[in-house]
Amino acid sequence: MEEKINLKFDINGLIPAVVQDNSTGAVLMVAWMNREAYDLTRRSHQAHFWSRSRREIWHKGATSGNTMTVISMWVDCDADTVLLKVNPAGPACHTGQTSCFFREINLINP
Amino acid sequence: MEEKINLKFDINGLIPAVVQDNSTGAVLMVAWMNREAYDLTRRSHQAHFWSRSRREIWHKGATSGNTMTVISMWVDCDADTVLLKVNPAGPACHTGQTSCFFREINLINP
Repeated sequence: MEEKINLKFDINGLIPAVVQDNSTGAVLMVAWMNREAYDLTRRSHQAHFWSRSRREIWHKGATSGNTMTVISMWVDCDADTVLLKVNPAGPACHTGQTSCFFREINLINP
Repeated sequence: MEEKINLKFDINGLIPAVVQDNSTGAVLMVAWMNREAYDLTRRSHQAHFWSRSRREIWHKGATSGNTMTVISMWVDCDADTVLLKVNPAGPACHTGQTSCFFREINLINP
């Protein structure tokens, strides 16, 4: 049995959600959940987020078809971030890239 | 050559940073960077964050010894989250767990 987890939503009622490909381990995206998106995700096993720009619940892939089936969900030690391990139906990124993290930042060499 | 990346720091001057083990692919933690922590990380190749509780720059592992050597840094499509791929010198979590995401959240079965 899991312990009772009291998620710490921020002052806007949101918590960041890291999404990782359950098979490849790739970090696909980071989005935000409110309580409703969190509950919808747990119940439907489909990734739901809160769109901060559109100010609405966002069922990831509902329009693009690139849904994400949630295999497992995790919370960090201070309960202010969640991790979703998913099987994505297609690219995570609206650009068509597999992951939203496709641009590398150069490290500065000493 | 990388394109010029204009990171989008939030209203508090912070950007979330996902930390992933470069070897195992495990998501280790999520922390926050301000511009100074970001610059320090790029220059030193050691993970630096902004501690929101202590309100100071946090060189991860400076006291515990569990530093993180940054192998590569990535930014997402909308430039409001960064991803660090690191070689950790020890457990990421203050609890001694390898990853801060060691508690699973039960999915609800229909």
